[in-house]
Amino acid sequence: MSLLVVGSVALDSVHTPFGETADALGGSAVYFSVAGSLLHPVSVVGVVGNDYPMRDLERVAPRGIDWSGVEQADGESFRWKGKYSYDLQSRETLETRLGVFADFHPKLPQSAQDADYVFLGNIDPTLQLDVLEQVRAPKLIVCDTMNYWINGKREALLALLERVDILMVNDSEARELSGDWNIHRSARWILDRGPRCVVIKQGEYGALMMYADRTFYVPAFPLEEVFDPTGAGDAFAGGFMGYLAHSGDLSSDAMRRAMVYGATMGSYAVAGFGVRGFDKVELSDVAVRVRRFVDLTHVPVAERIE
Amino acid sequence: MSLLVVGSVALDSVHTPFGETADALGGSAVYFSVAGSLLHPVSVVGVVGNDYPMRDLERVAPRGIDWSGVEQADGESFRWKGKYSYDLQSRETLETRLGVFADFHPKLPQSAQDADYVFLGNIDPTLQLDVLEQVRAPKLIVCDTMNYWINGKREALLALLERVDILMVNDSEARELSGDWNIHRSARWILDRGPRCVVIKQGEYGALMMYADRTFYVPAFPLEEVFDPTGAGDAFAGGFMGYLAHSGDLSSDAMRRAMVYGATMGSYAVAGFGVRGFDKVELSDVAVRVRRFVDLTHVPVAERIE
Repeated sequence: MSLLVVGSVALDSVHTPFGETADALGGSAVYFSVAGSLLHPVSVVGVVGNDYPMRDLERVAPRGIDWSGVEQADGESFRWKGKYSYDLQSRETLETRLGVFADFHPKLPQSAQDADYVFLGNIDPTLQLDVLEQVRAPKLIVCDTMNYWINGKREALLALLERVDILMVNDSEARELSGDWNIHRSARWILDRGPRCVVIKQGEYGALMMYADRTFYVPAFPLEEVFDPTGAGDAFAGGFMGYLAHSGDLSSDAMRRAMVYGATMGSYAVAGFGVRGFDKVELSDVAVRVRRFVDLTHVPVAERIE
Repeated sequence: MSLLVVGSVALDSVHTPFGETADALGGSAVYFSVAGSLLHPVSVVGVVGNDYPMRDLERVAPRGIDWSGVEQADGESFRWKGKYSYDLQSRETLETRLGVFADFHPKLPQSAQDADYVFLGNIDPTLQLDVLEQVRAPKLIVCDTMNYWINGKREALLALLERVDILMVNDSEARELSGDWNIHRSARWILDRGPRCVVIKQGEYGALMMYADRTFYVPAFPLEEVFDPTGAGDAFAGGFMGYLAHSGDLSSDAMRRAMVYGATMGSYAVAGFGVRGFDKVELSDVAVRVRRFVDLTHVPVAERIE
């Protein structure tokens, strides 16, 4: 099963109470593919300027990320600069320079048009719709979005929702989209607009997966040290879809396991600055952490109280 | 196994976006016992004024709550008045009138002194220590506290921690007690001070149970309607200890199941004003909800990715 992500390939400058980075590899497609490629090969479609450190991209792709769909355009790469609060619970965007990303019009290479599993990273919903026009027979379409598009491109976003299988957002985005603060009613609102499933990420509290008639919950991994939450949501998506593409299984059991792989990748993302949390992660480490996740919520069945 | 709770028996006036109550049954011991008695008989030690509607107390105890340890003193009952924000995420205390509770000195009846399972509701830690002097051979001691005592009676609270098996608090209390915003480091700080286990309640995000070497997580039940969060934590404690007392099992498997019973009772507490969320709850309903809880986080095991 081929796995495609379309999203940003950026340079992030992040300030946290524990340190800072400048012009480090970032962007939704980078986090997604670094995480997802631990489980399954990933093809990336995006754009960078001619200032992008392409050699660094190659370095983080030992397990097979195909960067050939990343166009190199004349101009500056997308740059984001942000600062986190002392408890990492909130962040402030200090600067956003779109650069060549402002004129990004995703053009899918021939091979990407045949993608089975498609992740539409957080970009303009009009472009996300454009991508869907180019893929021939996708088996699973998952999309992300953000408050900026929820407010600014609502109509395109609602048109997109009719065409995706899963919307994957964080809790504040789900609330803003639905206009309802109750997260379960928000999910129902979203399900009524097209997706058959919604995944709501809640940061340190884990993530929920909701269908019309069923909910699944995965906690966040218990971490005593968190360094940089940037990209955790995209790494979650990478783990989620990497697992599904690898297994070729879209049953509800497989979706539950995919949530655990997603949470596992999210836990690596926050453990280091930028994508460095993945530096030494091997598939065998992933397997150990997945088992610990399963134990984290395992309830041994006993006699009923009568 | 006999189960004892020492705590407040109060009259609550609560204002939420969905309605309000005036002088309704409330207090930690009431929520605890109404929830816990669905699973196991509960004895209550507390104090009320001569204005307390004792008949209403009897009414909510169909399954066997022993109120005989509730002293009726001359004066006014403890009254609390609070108002919740539109999203029920925060609340403001409008009025606290301690009444006879100000002079409360728990005196355990003979039978209560033989209690096997003891829950020390949120009262002055000096009084909680007093209670421990009166119980002969408890098998499990669980205590709650709040920010007021963490700041005002820190020394007594730390002395208490050395003598309890489990501290059960919410996340802001754990953070305030430890001085650390990371919830897992907070838990470790607490474990270093005596308890062999700490349970941290996180409201709509569920609850964590942490030992030195292991963590267990139970989510909150997915509810599209929440009416009144008052007492959810005490109902959680009631379900947790009611299950343990009923089973007579303190293995780590039983503790996990107890967490699920706790979360189940918490979900009933928030579904109605005061203790009314329990009005029509039968043991068979509890069993159904417990099974739904187990399903909520169940991860079907599959082949490893190699």
